[in-house]
Amino acid sequence: MSLIVQKYGGTSVANPDSLKIVAEKIISAKKEGKQVVVVVSAMGSSTDELIALANELSETPSPREMDMLLSAGERITMSLLAMHLNSLGYDSYSLTGSQAGIITTSRHGRAEIEKISGERVKEGLEKGSIVIVAGFQGFNPDTREITTLGRGGSDATAVALAASLGAEKCEIYTDVEGVFSADPRITDKAKLLKEITYDEMLEMASTGARVLMARSVEFGRRYNVPIIVRPTFSDGMGTTVKEQVMEQAIVSGVTHNDKEIKFTLFGVPDQPGIAGSVFGHLSDKGVNVDMIVQNVSKDSKTDISFTAPEEQKDEVMEILLHLTQDLKAEGSDKDENIARVSIIGAGMKSESGVASKMFKTLGSNEINIGMISTSPIRISCVISKNDMQKAIEVLHDEFIID
Amino acid sequence: MSLIVQKYGGTSVANPDSLKIVAEKIISAKKEGKQVVVVVSAMGSSTDELIALANELSETPSPREMDMLLSAGERITMSLLAMHLNSLGYDSYSLTGSQAGIITTSRHGRAEIEKISGERVKEGLEKGSIVIVAGFQGFNPDTREITTLGRGGSDATAVALAASLGAEKCEIYTDVEGVFSADPRITDKAKLLKEITYDEMLEMASTGARVLMARSVEFGRRYNVPIIVRPTFSDGMGTTVKEQVMEQAIVSGVTHNDKEIKFTLFGVPDQPGIAGSVFGHLSDKGVNVDMIVQNVSKDSKTDISFTAPEEQKDEVMEILLHLTQDLKAEGSDKDENIARVSIIGAGMKSESGVASKMFKTLGSNEINIGMISTSPIRISCVISKNDMQKAIEVLHDEFIID
Repeated sequence: MSLIVQKYGGTSVANPDSLKIVAEKIISAKKEGKQVVVVVSAMGSSTDELIALANELSETPSPREMDMLLSAGERITMSLLAMHLNSLGYDSYSLTGSQAGIITTSRHGRAEIEKISGERVKEGLEKGSIVIVAGFQGFNPDTREITTLGRGGSDATAVALAASLGAEKCEIYTDVEGVFSADPRITDKAKLLKEITYDEMLEMASTGARVLMARSVEFGRRYNVPIIVRPTFSDGMGTTVKEQVMEQAIVSGVTHNDKEIKFTLFGVPDQPGIAGSVFGHLSDKGVNVDMIVQNVSKDSKTDISFTAPEEQKDEVMEILLHLTQDLKAEGSDKDENIARVSIIGAGMKSESGVASKMFKTLGSNEINIGMISTSPIRISCVISKNDMQKAIEVLHDEFIID
Repeated sequence: MSLIVQKYGGTSVANPDSLKIVAEKIISAKKEGKQVVVVVSAMGSSTDELIALANELSETPSPREMDMLLSAGERITMSLLAMHLNSLGYDSYSLTGSQAGIITTSRHGRAEIEKISGERVKEGLEKGSIVIVAGFQGFNPDTREITTLGRGGSDATAVALAASLGAEKCEIYTDVEGVFSADPRITDKAKLLKEITYDEMLEMASTGARVLMARSVEFGRRYNVPIIVRPTFSDGMGTTVKEQVMEQAIVSGVTHNDKEIKFTLFGVPDQPGIAGSVFGHLSDKGVNVDMIVQNVSKDSKTDISFTAPEEQKDEVMEILLHLTQDLKAEGSDKDENIARVSIIGAGMKSESGVASKMFKTLGSNEINIGMISTSPIRISCVISKNDMQKAIEVLHDEFIID
């Protein structure tokens, strides 16, 4: 009998009425003759409400207690869902992360899944039950502590469970129709992608598409579990993320990110090891540096620019002040008025001229390019935030619609 | 170092502000040089809210899933309290029932504590931490399931923990000042009792005083753990429940219960085994029969009366219909307009004439007595509900105030 894992996020389980819709989806998979494992998140905004309570009682809540607190959320969803399925005549029970054997590292708040024993999940499936598992949470046997997995944790639970149980696929139900060729809120020409490769999805996730986090895509790729991103509140077929797709477009999507800032260190002595020193320092302080550009050296001096998330602005500026002194650089600056647009497509690998076509398209629309970075299946350009909307539209017209 | 267990109920931990007050109480015990273990309930009305959600999704929620759902409540309280104590500079961590080693029977919703291993509680105490334990919940190792203890469960957790850890006392913090000689909402002459014996508290709990459930008092008595019922939101010293009290009053309290109905089977053949058959039947159906009176036989027929909780009215009437036929009795009836008043005092054991004084007091106030039952330290009379207030006042005047 084939097995599927379904995951329902917070907006899909926000209230009793949405839980009833979720139950119908589960039952329809069951009626197709499938074994079903369901992973759920906490209901709606309940996690935010718990965090607000914690902040009222502690400025820097202990990560261990924070995990204890937040892991209450999925318990509520999963037990309500199981009792509703029972009331509809379907055998079902819920398991906490620990009961499901989700073994993680011990790092509270950002634990990683190490292994899934899944003993009680398998027992339930053998008896024909629908097994509901708490997303986002696990257990570390050494510390004997409950852990949580951080952002995108429930998706990671679902894909990892699918991998460990040998499921045919993992369905991630959400409040959007699937993965689009661009953000539909930015351009109404954006079209739903039927299929996309793991590599493309990874590049899209890391350049601004927020529908699926990179960590679960990586799990899917490593264990070759097809991931289907589907809508909870409609019958759409969503987007399938997998190894090979039928028709490989040259460019599958245009993504954007306007939540980064560009920082520059001016007049750094151009000596071996300087870049290593700069980025080693930033990495030690936990700054997530993204794009990096180093100018051509002039008078044995160079400028180093990079982008980092805007919420780390203050930390980065402080580090740059110190580095300017230590490295005897000429100064540092930041530019908050930037955005990054990227085009992504596995077809680029075998197609030349994509990059120059991108630059030309932006140029002929009078959009100036500040920084460039590339991977085999992605080209990203940093531009002015004011040009972002236009850039997405012209790139989408040029590469997707034709 | 002496150890105390403190328990804070739902109204004491209803919101962040009350949790801050609770933290102060805990810290003041810590400053007195004590080791402190704290047992908490779910916040305010959160349990009722979860039950309402469950009822929206299932008419008869699975008891197993109900326990999973409700056990989320204490997790939230305990982690918030631990992180708040941390933020005030006190080492503290929270433990679920299962982590604290609260081993229970497997009966969901009404499990009983079988054993407390308390390993991780002791580890915490040795390190000087304030250990917060979830009340109301436990774990059954055979089924590997989370259980809840039912009504009064958090008090039971606290007293059982105090017993197993060898604590000097167990403090039950609540929203009243302690145990009173009568319900202060019924008579303003009611006075706070400084001390009371386990036996008296058991009789008071079973005849209407709702401040402490009989199950935790029984635990306290069995292991000789003094229980102090104290107010959370004032500095009152509360009531100490223990084996021996300094000055044993003849009567310590007057209790009442107006939530019962009197049922009567008329004209039952007066043969051996009839009463056994009646009450065996009721007990099989889970009816909590309380007082029983059987009239003197007349023409080989007798009337049997008993009281039972009003919420079991329909079940009892159906059973009585069947019994009337089976036993060839003359009929059955119910009287909903009754109340029970009781006087309780360990001093009664060595004092004669208390019962007749009670009957005379009621009689001279024109209060008619319908049924009587006694124990060595209690006398209960069933009277008309309309006379209840007056009965409490005159009995309190006669026995307590003098």
